[in-house]
Amino acid sequence: MTNLINDRLIRALLRQPVDCTPVWLMRQAGRYLPEYRATRAKAGDFMTLCKTPELACEVTMQPLARYDLDAAILFSDILTIPDAMGLGLHFTQGEGPAFQRPIRSAADVRQLNIPDPESELNYVISAVRTIKQALQNKIPLIGFAGSPWTLATYMVEGGSSKQFSIIKAMLYNQPQTLHLLLSKLATAVTAYLNAQIAAGANAVMLFDTWGGVLTTEAYQAFSLNYMQQIMAGLTRQVNGQTIPIILFTKGGQQWLEITAASGCDAIGVDWTIDISQAKQRVGNKVALQGNMDPAILHASPEYIRQEVKSILAGYGHNPGHVFNLGHGITPDIPPEHVKVLVDAVHEFSQLTP
Amino acid sequence: MTNLINDRLIRALLRQPVDCTPVWLMRQAGRYLPEYRATRAKAGDFMTLCKTPELACEVTMQPLARYDLDAAILFSDILTIPDAMGLGLHFTQGEGPAFQRPIRSAADVRQLNIPDPESELNYVISAVRTIKQALQNKIPLIGFAGSPWTLATYMVEGGSSKQFSIIKAMLYNQPQTLHLLLSKLATAVTAYLNAQIAAGANAVMLFDTWGGVLTTEAYQAFSLNYMQQIMAGLTRQVNGQTIPIILFTKGGQQWLEITAASGCDAIGVDWTIDISQAKQRVGNKVALQGNMDPAILHASPEYIRQEVKSILAGYGHNPGHVFNLGHGITPDIPPEHVKVLVDAVHEFSQLTP
Repeated sequence: MTNLINDRLIRALLRQPVDCTPVWLMRQAGRYLPEYRATRAKAGDFMTLCKTPELACEVTMQPLARYDLDAAILFSDILTIPDAMGLGLHFTQGEGPAFQRPIRSAADVRQLNIPDPESELNYVISAVRTIKQALQNKIPLIGFAGSPWTLATYMVEGGSSKQFSIIKAMLYNQPQTLHLLLSKLATAVTAYLNAQIAAGANAVMLFDTWGGVLTTEAYQAFSLNYMQQIMAGLTRQVNGQTIPIILFTKGGQQWLEITAASGCDAIGVDWTIDISQAKQRVGNKVALQGNMDPAILHASPEYIRQEVKSILAGYGHNPGHVFNLGHGITPDIPPEHVKVLVDAVHEFSQLTP
Repeated sequence: MTNLINDRLIRALLRQPVDCTPVWLMRQAGRYLPEYRATRAKAGDFMTLCKTPELACEVTMQPLARYDLDAAILFSDILTIPDAMGLGLHFTQGEGPAFQRPIRSAADVRQLNIPDPESELNYVISAVRTIKQALQNKIPLIGFAGSPWTLATYMVEGGSSKQFSIIKAMLYNQPQTLHLLLSKLATAVTAYLNAQIAAGANAVMLFDTWGGVLTTEAYQAFSLNYMQQIMAGLTRQVNGQTIPIILFTKGGQQWLEITAASGCDAIGVDWTIDISQAKQRVGNKVALQGNMDPAILHASPEYIRQEVKSILAGYGHNPGHVFNLGHGITPDIPPEHVKVLVDAVHEFSQLTP
């Protein structure tokens, strides 16, 4: 069905049978790896790492040399789009991303240009092509983008936020301004993901990191609605191969039924819900990706193996499970514990004859 | 049943009929009020405000002069207990609370003393007595404490956290150390809340601010378990009056059924779940407190009134609803919008003859 040597991830995302459960990990290329820290030091800063395709490829490939992972994920950041829109992205020590020119008015929104992925975001598309070459079709490459709502939170707040007061005031007082911003972002994200797909991404993931701070009504109108627009505009077939879409709303476990009906192929779930319950709620509508607490990687190898077994059993060895964490690996995790996890997923999920 | 002139809150928490839905708001005494900012400036810093009973009383009473609220809540902080345990609490600009001597080992835990509320925490108990006098039994006073798990996160991490890596590493690698800490905290919180009740608190609330970052299994073993120990040890009757207990696990909507069976009288819910669904899930086991998004206080009076109506209708005018926000009022809220909310709750919840 695909030209991939290992296509477990694609098959599982499409709820087809697999020989064992595929596994990849959010932030599998990251600071917990000494070789990542070396490349990062060579790059100087985080955005230079993202903007240099050879280095982005280098760090994307690093965890694959250590672990038997079933997918690579493009090394990049969700804020590449607002950065390309001219907001002046920079990273402050300890406080995370910040924008020099936040979006506060309808006039600000109207001035925003929708970036052309092949020019303003060429470094990302070029990274996709470089990684695809390096992968030699051994395993699939996952492309990704932030959801319009999530990108808008950073653009309006001017950086990270705890209460989201500024964007929520906009949501309730100037909903049309926010809708215009989200609509522009949906157009930008669609073009961006389609360019990643054209460059070789085999699956794409939408990170709705901050959808979970909304009411149900606002989640549907201001977050899910725009993710649905994106999903409807994505290239779904390339050379007869389906490109699956994974949707991950952090803290969105209360909306599993509505996200399952949104047009995605799979939903990412975090550890605050038992995967058996999540499976029961979505039925056979979508695949599930998750859901181990990354903090469990601090535990002993025996504990990690036990937890992997328990999550696999919770899902129930049905088709449609991609093993992952519910959040990115944190920098303080011992790399050898990640190997324990990856191997345990394959070991415990093999069908007994 | 009570000696309170307005006992709507107590009746609603015990799921008894009321003439209209009671309302109070988390952080109703807070920075959004100019008179609070004036008292705070007079005190100099936040902990002096907490530690001076007359000033704590002054700010507790301030919102009652403006709004027709059905309860006062003790002005204090959940970190008074770790502070009294000698961890060296201080507040850093923009970063929140921090402890000079975080808890990292079993030896650290063993050294912790359980504070006597009437001596080390006398300023809190004295504030309760002062506020009770000022209230003249017009409305009930709510006492409160942080849950053992929530207090432990600050004590082990040394302050606020995003990933909770240090305490989760302890949870998975040194569970017995963490259990010892939580057990000591449960004893301390029980004595602390019983002293508040003896000093006149008419209801108590347990704030489990960080329970929602745990897996279901860990939530039950490391958070809910210790809250149940506390609830079992609280004075439940004073002069023939029942002291209701409200339990609030932020981000804990997936565990409504298990928290409803924990021995509390009411559960606080935030805006990420529709209150009609929450009501359906808990049935008549407990009352519900919530659940408007405080950001809606940025909206127009008409919008706020509409939202209040919708939440009241969602609960369905059954007994057992206490109107509240799902989180504290943020400093940027216009005080006149709070009046709109409070009045709308009473107006729209009156039984039509």
